[in-house]
Amino acid sequence: MKKLSFQEIEQALAQLPAWELDSARGAISRRYTFADFSQAFAFMTRIALYAEKHDHHPEWSNVYNKVDVTLTTHDAGGLTQRDVDFARHADGVAQAGGGERG
Amino acid sequence: MKKLSFQEIEQALAQLPAWELDSARGAISRRYTFADFSQAFAFMTRIALYAEKHDHHPEWSNVYNKVDVTLTTHDAGGLTQRDVDFARHADGVAQAGGGERG
Repeated sequence: MKKLSFQEIEQALAQLPAWELDSARGAISRRYTFADFSQAFAFMTRIALYAEKHDHHPEWSNVYNKVDVTLTTHDAGGLTQRDVDFARHADGVAQAGGGERG
Repeated sequence: MKKLSFQEIEQALAQLPAWELDSARGAISRRYTFADFSQAFAFMTRIALYAEKHDHHPEWSNVYNKVDVTLTTHDAGGLTQRDVDFARHADGVAQAGGGERG
């Protein structure tokens, strides 16, 4: 899996407006805010299954109804298509769950 | 739920050797290390159920096989017996799961 070029990253992020790029690190991050802890952890559970299935795991943290997710591909030393696919999937899960507030 | 005194905190931490006190903040933290992500998230799932049941939620983060947990009681502005009980429970879950490495 090769690192995305700066242009490829820009194109991908245009479709992922909630995600912020840390270009020094080669990582993208965003915060999900849910109605409560139960909704937040339901989201985390679905993301955990995706992560395990694809053998691609997030750096993430949770405080009550908030989940902060950071994605990078350690083996590639930066962002790859796997991170973009992960971010799209996570956004879809958050929307489908119905508990996302912003 | 009232804040624990410094003496009460010292006594509680004597039974929780892996936990570190942030006395300025009134919080305790520790890292759990598991065999892999699956074990780490299984632990997180059990802790999430406990948190929801007791309406007392951790600040926590996960990177692959590592789970960092911080406990404090926001309503009390520091540590209470609920945090001590939570920490004991979490240590027990980690040991019972069998996946903890250290």
